[in-house]
Amino acid sequence: MQNLRETSLELHKQSKGKININVKVPVENAYDLSLAYSPGVAEPCKEIYLNPEKIYDYTIKGNLVAVVSDGSAVLGLGNIGPAAAMPVMEGKAALFKAFADVDAFPICLNTNDVEQIIQTVKLMEPTFGGINLEDIAAPNCFIIEERLKKEMNIPVFHDDQHGTAIVTAAGLINALKLVGKRLEETSVVVNGAGAAGIAITKLLLRMGVCDIILCDTKGAIYEGRLTGMNSMKDSIAMLTNKSHIQGDLKEVIKGVDVFIGVSAAGAVTQEMVMSMNEDAIIFAMANPIPEIMPEEAMEAGAAVVGTGRSDLPNQVNNVLAFPGIFKGALKVHASEINEEMKLAAVYAIANLITEEELSREYVIPHPFDKRVTEVVTAAVAETAIKTGVARKKMEQEKTF
Amino acid sequence: MQNLRETSLELHKQSKGKININVKVPVENAYDLSLAYSPGVAEPCKEIYLNPEKIYDYTIKGNLVAVVSDGSAVLGLGNIGPAAAMPVMEGKAALFKAFADVDAFPICLNTNDVEQIIQTVKLMEPTFGGINLEDIAAPNCFIIEERLKKEMNIPVFHDDQHGTAIVTAAGLINALKLVGKRLEETSVVVNGAGAAGIAITKLLLRMGVCDIILCDTKGAIYEGRLTGMNSMKDSIAMLTNKSHIQGDLKEVIKGVDVFIGVSAAGAVTQEMVMSMNEDAIIFAMANPIPEIMPEEAMEAGAAVVGTGRSDLPNQVNNVLAFPGIFKGALKVHASEINEEMKLAAVYAIANLITEEELSREYVIPHPFDKRVTEVVTAAVAETAIKTGVARKKMEQEKTF
Repeated sequence: MQNLRETSLELHKQSKGKININVKVPVENAYDLSLAYSPGVAEPCKEIYLNPEKIYDYTIKGNLVAVVSDGSAVLGLGNIGPAAAMPVMEGKAALFKAFADVDAFPICLNTNDVEQIIQTVKLMEPTFGGINLEDIAAPNCFIIEERLKKEMNIPVFHDDQHGTAIVTAAGLINALKLVGKRLEETSVVVNGAGAAGIAITKLLLRMGVCDIILCDTKGAIYEGRLTGMNSMKDSIAMLTNKSHIQGDLKEVIKGVDVFIGVSAAGAVTQEMVMSMNEDAIIFAMANPIPEIMPEEAMEAGAAVVGTGRSDLPNQVNNVLAFPGIFKGALKVHASEINEEMKLAAVYAIANLITEEELSREYVIPHPFDKRVTEVVTAAVAETAIKTGVARKKMEQEKTF
Repeated sequence: MQNLRETSLELHKQSKGKININVKVPVENAYDLSLAYSPGVAEPCKEIYLNPEKIYDYTIKGNLVAVVSDGSAVLGLGNIGPAAAMPVMEGKAALFKAFADVDAFPICLNTNDVEQIIQTVKLMEPTFGGINLEDIAAPNCFIIEERLKKEMNIPVFHDDQHGTAIVTAAGLINALKLVGKRLEETSVVVNGAGAAGIAITKLLLRMGVCDIILCDTKGAIYEGRLTGMNSMKDSIAMLTNKSHIQGDLKEVIKGVDVFIGVSAAGAVTQEMVMSMNEDAIIFAMANPIPEIMPEEAMEAGAAVVGTGRSDLPNQVNNVLAFPGIFKGALKVHASEINEEMKLAAVYAIANLITEEELSREYVIPHPFDKRVTEVVTAAVAETAIKTGVARKKMEQEKTF
C-alpha cells in the first residue's frame, strides 16, 4: 500500500490532474477563428435560439455529463469536502471517457445544503446532457436525485446508488442461474442501509425478489422499528421483511440464499456463512476489505462470492454500468434514466456471459471487457425509445 | 456571408461542438485504475483534505477556468439565452486552450437573476482556478463581477469589459507614440456606455488620461444628467467630463484627439473626423461594421484607425489579452486579477511593437503573434507577485 500511495501521488502530481480540454476544430489562423468564433459562431447560436433542440447538433451538450459532488461521502473517506473530492470526480470523468467516449466534467460544490445543490445543478442544465451525482451522503443523495429527476429535462443518475445496484443485480442473476435457484423464490439479506444498500434493495424488489431483509448497524429493519430510522428506511420497511423479523445480522442471515454486503470489513464470519441456505451466494462489497474474504466464504460453503476488489474474481465494478447507461441515454437524447432502462442494463450485463462460460468465479464480466459498454449502451437506448423518453427521432430504430 | 454561415454550421455539426475531454493518464487496465481511481485516488484526496492548497498539485484546478454566461448579451445578438450562448462559450474555451494552453470549460446558466448567478458561481469555486465572465448584459455584469471578486478567492474577470479595454489601451499607447502626443494631455471621447465602454473609460482614467467624455445614445454623460442614467453612469459621470459638456456625439467629438467607439455601425461620419484635433486616433470597434470604415476615416484625416475586424489593420482582439492574463494569474495562484495586473498586460502588449516597427497600420500586435501570450503571462504573473496577490511561493521570481 505504501507503494500504491507514492505511485498515485506521483502520477497525480506529474500530470496535474487526470483530464484536460481538447480542441476539436482548427484554431490556427484568422479564417479558423471566423468560423469557430466571431463572426461565424453566431450562426449556430441563431439556430439554437430558433430551435432549442439544435443544441444537440452544434455543441458538446449531447455527449457531456457533469460529475457532481459535495464531497460528503467520498470513497471510504467520508465527508472530506468538495476540494478533497476533486481527484475522485476527475477520475470518474476519466472513466466516462475511457470506457464510453462520453465527455464528463467534475463539478465539486462548496455546500452540503440540499436546496443549494439542487438549485445549482438545475441552473447548469443548458450546458450538460446528463448529471451523474457522486459521493453525496445519504439521505441527502436521495432527496437531491428525486428532486432533480422531477425538475430537470436531462437524465440524472446517482451512481453510488444505481451503478452498484445494477452490477450487483447482474451478478446475482448469473449466480442464481449457476446454482439453479429462481429470483422469485430467493431470500436475500442486504447489510448496509446507505445509498447503495437502499438502491440494491429497491432494484431487487422490482426484479421480483420477494423476500428481502435490509439490515443496518442496529440489525434488521422492520416496519415499526423505533430507533435509527429515517424516511428512506421507513419506506423500505413497508416493502421488505414482511415477517417483521428482528435481530442482528447473525440472526437474520440464518437460512437465507443470498447475502449482499455494502457495510464494513469483517461483518460476516464463516459461522454465519455456514448458517445460510445451501449454495449460498455472497456479494461482500465493503472496500477495501470485504465483509468476508472469498476464500473463507467458499471454505464455509458459499457457492459464489463477489467483492468490490479488482484483484479478486467477480468484481462488482460500477464501470460496467454507468458509462453505457449514460451513453445509451445521451444517444437518443433521453429525458431521464428510468427504471426500465436500469433493468435493461442489468440484463445486458448478465447476458453477456453465456451459460457455458458461467462459473463460480465468472458471474460478472471483467471491467475491461469492451463488449460491456456496447451492449449496455444499446439496451439502454432501445429501452429509452420503447418507454417513450427518447427525444431524438431515430431514423432506424432497429440499429440498436 | 452565406458561405461563412454554411461553413460554420457544417463545422459545428460535424464536430458536435468545439471542445471535448481528454484523459491525461493511462486507464487501460486494473493497475491503471487502482492509481487513477479506487483505491489509489484516496491518497491525493487525503493530502488535499489535510492541506487545501495541494489541490493545485494534484488536480486540474490550477489550470482550469470557467467561462460563465447567462446568455444575456451574446455577440451582437443580444439576450438569446444560455442554450443559444453555448457555441460562443465553447469557442471561448477553445481560444483559451489554443492561445495559452489553459483549460477552460463553458458554464451556461439558466437564469438572469444576479443573486442566483453569484451564488452558483461561488459554489463552484472548489473546481476552478479562475472565472471568466462572458456576454452578461450591463448593468448585471458589473454587480456580478464586483461581488464575485469580493467573495471568491480565485481570479474573476469579465472579459467583455477588461479584455477589450486592455487591448484598446495598448493600441492607444502606441498610436499616441506614433503621433507624438502624451496620454496625460490627450482628450478622448468614448461612445457606448455598456460593459466595454465603461471599462475602457475606467482603465484610461487609471492610466492618466484626464480628459474623457463618455457618450451613450443620448449624448455626453455628465454629472447631473437626468435621463438614461444608471448607477454605473452616475459614478462615471463624477470622474469624467469635468467641464460638464452636453450635446450629442457630433458636438462632443469636435477638437478631441481620440475617438473610441463600442457603439454601432456608422455612428461616425467623415465630417465628424474632420472636426477632431489634428492626428486624430480612432478605434471604431462596432461589430461587424465599424462606426466608420478605416479608409473613410483616413481620407478625412485620421492618423491611426483600429477596428474589431480581422480583415482590417489594428484589430482590437481580446485574444491578445485574456489568455495570457489568466495564464499569468493561474501560474502564481493569484487570488485575483487586480488593476496593476491589467495595466501590466496593457504595457506588455503595447511594448511588443518596437518604435522602429510602429506604423499607422501596426499599433496593435497581430492576434496570432505567439509572443503576445508569453509576454502578457510573464508581466501578469510578475505583477501578481509584486502586488502580493500570488499565493504560490515562486522559487525563482526572476524567471518571469
